[in-house]
Amino acid sequence: MMAKGFFSNVLYVNLSEKKATVEHFDEGFYRTYIGGSGLGAKILFDSTSKTTDPLGSENLLIFAVGPLTGTKIFNSNRFEVVSRSPLTGIYGEANCGGYWGECFKRCGYDALIVSGKAKSPTYIYIDGDSVRLEDASQIWGMDTFSADRFFKERYGTKSQAAVIGPAGENLVLFASIMTGGVHGRAIGRCGLGAVMGSKYLKAVIVKGTKTVEVMDQKGIAALQKEIAPLMNADLSKTIRKFGTTGGVEYCEQIGNLPIKNWFQGSWPEGAKKISGQKMADTILVNNYACGRCALRCGRVVQAAGGDYDEQEVGGPEYETVGMIGSNCLIDDLTAIAKANELCNRYGMDTISTGGVIGFSMEAHERELITKEDLGGIELNWGDGNAVIAMIHQIALRKGWGNELANGVRKTAEKIGGIASEFAIHVKGLEPPAHDPRAKMSSALQLATSNRGACHLQAFTSDFDEGLHIPDLGVPQMTDRFATAGKAESVIRMQNLMSMFDSLTCCKFLLFAGINVNQLVSLMNCVTGWNIGYEEFFQTGERIFNLKRLYNTRLGVSRKDDDLPLRLLTHKRGGGTEALPPLHQMLGEYYEIRKWDEFGIPTDAKIKELGL
Amino acid sequence: MMAKGFFSNVLYVNLSEKKATVEHFDEGFYRTYIGGSGLGAKILFDSTSKTTDPLGSENLLIFAVGPLTGTKIFNSNRFEVVSRSPLTGIYGEANCGGYWGECFKRCGYDALIVSGKAKSPTYIYIDGDSVRLEDASQIWGMDTFSADRFFKERYGTKSQAAVIGPAGENLVLFASIMTGGVHGRAIGRCGLGAVMGSKYLKAVIVKGTKTVEVMDQKGIAALQKEIAPLMNADLSKTIRKFGTTGGVEYCEQIGNLPIKNWFQGSWPEGAKKISGQKMADTILVNNYACGRCALRCGRVVQAAGGDYDEQEVGGPEYETVGMIGSNCLIDDLTAIAKANELCNRYGMDTISTGGVIGFSMEAHERELITKEDLGGIELNWGDGNAVIAMIHQIALRKGWGNELANGVRKTAEKIGGIASEFAIHVKGLEPPAHDPRAKMSSALQLATSNRGACHLQAFTSDFDEGLHIPDLGVPQMTDRFATAGKAESVIRMQNLMSMFDSLTCCKFLLFAGINVNQLVSLMNCVTGWNIGYEEFFQTGERIFNLKRLYNTRLGVSRKDDDLPLRLLTHKRGGGTEALPPLHQMLGEYYEIRKWDEFGIPTDAKIKELGL
Repeated sequence: MMAKGFFSNVLYVNLSEKKATVEHFDEGFYRTYIGGSGLGAKILFDSTSKTTDPLGSENLLIFAVGPLTGTKIFNSNRFEVVSRSPLTGIYGEANCGGYWGECFKRCGYDALIVSGKAKSPTYIYIDGDSVRLEDASQIWGMDTFSADRFFKERYGTKSQAAVIGPAGENLVLFASIMTGGVHGRAIGRCGLGAVMGSKYLKAVIVKGTKTVEVMDQKGIAALQKEIAPLMNADLSKTIRKFGTTGGVEYCEQIGNLPIKNWFQGSWPEGAKKISGQKMADTILVNNYACGRCALRCGRVVQAAGGDYDEQEVGGPEYETVGMIGSNCLIDDLTAIAKANELCNRYGMDTISTGGVIGFSMEAHERELITKEDLGGIELNWGDGNAVIAMIHQIALRKGWGNELANGVRKTAEKIGGIASEFAIHVKGLEPPAHDPRAKMSSALQLATSNRGACHLQAFTSDFDEGLHIPDLGVPQMTDRFATAGKAESVIRMQNLMSMFDSLTCCKFLLFAGINVNQLVSLMNCVTGWNIGYEEFFQTGERIFNLKRLYNTRLGVSRKDDDLPLRLLTHKRGGGTEALPPLHQMLGEYYEIRKWDEFGIPTDAKIKELGL
Repeated sequence: MMAKGFFSNVLYVNLSEKKATVEHFDEGFYRTYIGGSGLGAKILFDSTSKTTDPLGSENLLIFAVGPLTGTKIFNSNRFEVVSRSPLTGIYGEANCGGYWGECFKRCGYDALIVSGKAKSPTYIYIDGDSVRLEDASQIWGMDTFSADRFFKERYGTKSQAAVIGPAGENLVLFASIMTGGVHGRAIGRCGLGAVMGSKYLKAVIVKGTKTVEVMDQKGIAALQKEIAPLMNADLSKTIRKFGTTGGVEYCEQIGNLPIKNWFQGSWPEGAKKISGQKMADTILVNNYACGRCALRCGRVVQAAGGDYDEQEVGGPEYETVGMIGSNCLIDDLTAIAKANELCNRYGMDTISTGGVIGFSMEAHERELITKEDLGGIELNWGDGNAVIAMIHQIALRKGWGNELANGVRKTAEKIGGIASEFAIHVKGLEPPAHDPRAKMSSALQLATSNRGACHLQAFTSDFDEGLHIPDLGVPQMTDRFATAGKAESVIRMQNLMSMFDSLTCCKFLLFAGINVNQLVSLMNCVTGWNIGYEEFFQTGERIFNLKRLYNTRLGVSRKDDDLPLRLLTHKRGGGTEALPPLHQMLGEYYEIRKWDEFGIPTDAKIKELGL
């Protein structure tokens, strides 16, 4: 009998052949790779090769849930999308809250694996009884809010849609996949929306009604009772009140907030104007939550779109405020909210969008691109209207936007000369708004994340000082500028995050104060497994290494575990005078990981992990 | 009236149009750019663009002498060749001793600028009366020793030939230009022989008989009297006795000698077997000197060619012993001498040859290339026969040699994966046998040299401890691992070396003990100028910055002022446990140079230097 918490069914849809098939995986597979990110990485690794074109029909787009998804466990309602990224060319993944994950799982599947390429715009409809490919010609070109409404009207409020907008259709290489309409949640990073667009796949609609069974309901209830008070802890309350943007001013103070394309040190007046506190005082209308979440970090703000019907939409998160706001010197919260809304409508990652626009502002200032190149848009620091104009251009691949749609790395290569000196990315992915000069562990997490510059695959950004997970198994980090012990902490966190992304559940549980053993117990209660603390971490380690092996097969090695020169050599000031000694930290990191001098997992490690 | 020491005539030869023209430059031009390297850089900068194909007819190949060339001043008989390098794609230059420089100058020219492309093999013959393009079909394919003999027989012993061998003809990207036949001197670095080959130019024969006039013969005589005893100082004697290879064992002890593709720390027994002392005891027959030189660092050794008539040939220098010897774990001096002879015959840089072969040995050991890839050659560490077999393959562009002929950077790119992790080069140029982990100033000199990994454009390798130039204007470097003050020293040395390469004279004068003021006085005695100490250095600074600007126009910036990861991250041991903190040193270097954060000379600096 299959363990509980998942259905052991994986749904394959081949768009070229218009064929759906179901495959069963045994429990051993799930114990080894868990679900979500781990399951996706395993299938991607086995079913694609180093010549797979990210935008070709042979690339897979994998939607996967984990054992916790769809249970009543706090903040468990997430899912993962995995593919080879067209933006970076390497392993790509992103995960998402909202309601789609649970609804998909309740169709009776743990994963949907899309291959091939439709001949014309198509969407996939899945419920507990059927899988259908439907014509999407009518809605091709529609923005994500409208498409979501379209599907809600067609399939009812209990259906959930994951859709792409014009950015995905136009193969913007950092296009997102959106769920939830105006109160949306994004599969933001790595351009997975472009993979969807390349397959002529407008949407995946799910309408699941099955019950997700768990093995030990009482055990879960007991644990939930333990955890429930955490949802009203101080930090939880702050998150509910100010969302993720509550930390903008603090981040500015310690030098963590990117300012002026990662160049400038301080910007206190600006940060004040774009903070979560300011948002609460001005455009904020309400908050909203993903399924099973009491933290409610989502912001509802007054829409500033102008051209659209909606009065209220999802507001910008911390990363958006950082990348489209301070990174472009935009101190107008309404402009940021509008830019955010547009990115969501078009289906486009706000982090990368802010990254490429900040870069362009600097290139414009340095006269490497002209107003003519920019199609007349005066892309000056702090000009919110110019940012908004450029967002339209990117999504529609018009003028300069057609360059920026390829991400900052390729745009810089196109410009040539010194442009790549201030093209801020790791492995082709524009970093989130966490400056590694402010926190040494951040340097390591950005350099070694399997999807390029990412804070979430280690999530040490808030744990490098202050926060701590008591049973993480490593000493608390207290000095954000220290390097000693950071490699070990980052590795431990990466292995843990691999489990979060596979189970799948929200990392903000750690803000609330959940500990590792509680998570292990929850997993065991759901599945009926008896995985111990050490096996739990080793499973995370296996998944992290599997993704690394996917990347090393593509040629990734130490040379790629690097940071942009600006972040290694330019002292930004403003709460930090530090420059991360990356080479040294990386050496320790490899040693602990048992990777060789080039960052390749050793045979011994591969064997130990059963890979 | 023109100042003395040069003729103010520059000879242009367009091979496409079969046309020779002469241009006169005024004295101001020479005071600004001196001659040699400075003159070449200026003409290359002005007459080529960033789209100039290094192997295209539009590239220039500039042979240039300086004010000191052809005078009776010690060690002044050198010349410079300047072009865009096909190996690195950036500024390329190399200089050479022997007798060609003086003989060319006595034809009445300061520079020969070759452009265009001949339709069939051609050589240029120049004497005081005429410039002729002659058919070289008969000798196309001939090795450099034979070609040299051929021209000596045709034009007499007072003629001098600069010739390419099969490597240059076959466009081996690190082909050299050779002078002097069996007792030869090479224009070794940057693949300038391939530029010559691309133009179908087999040789430039010169037979000058004019007198090089100087302004103050008495002043020169007085200075020469001052300097003469230095030629018998201790270090001078050691050079005469053991050549440049006298330091092999010491370099091994301090971790300066590359061993096993720059990986291994110690190899004392091996170093002993390939040292200059060992050479003196075994294969050494005699020594030889360039014109006007009393140091006589050239080695004459028993030929080990086997297939050739010669009984005695030029022996390997330190760089050759380091790169073909220890770098490939070859401890057989006869094999190294034979490899050296073959490189000279084929016309191929021994440093790059050792670099690409050491790299291939590692790639072979790591099973990234197979015996089949290698055409059956078992390229194992320490196998002298395999090295010799591979040298033939490279020069003839056969099998794997056809890859290696493109240099280590391109070969690594071709192999892909981790290969570039151990492809040791800077800006595409394989480094000479001076490990930057042994001397921190070496890190900076390799990273910032305008022609890629080069020790001669700063020449601090022997001045980072021990040797000192008393009037250099910066404190003596005493701790080779210290970084403080190194940026300033390296800059000072680079500016001085720019003058050596422009004047042109041999840097070993500094080993003998010449000081800056003596050099300045010699220059003024020749020319009649009254250039002071500060203007002297500023002129060197101008020339160095001019080359930098040539490179920045091609897109070179801070990102390229880098070292191979192995030299930054792998502690080799064996006399050094250090890893150069390059980012930090480079920051100081840019600041002192008044280059911006990206390594681009600031407008203020450009203006100050009159560029």
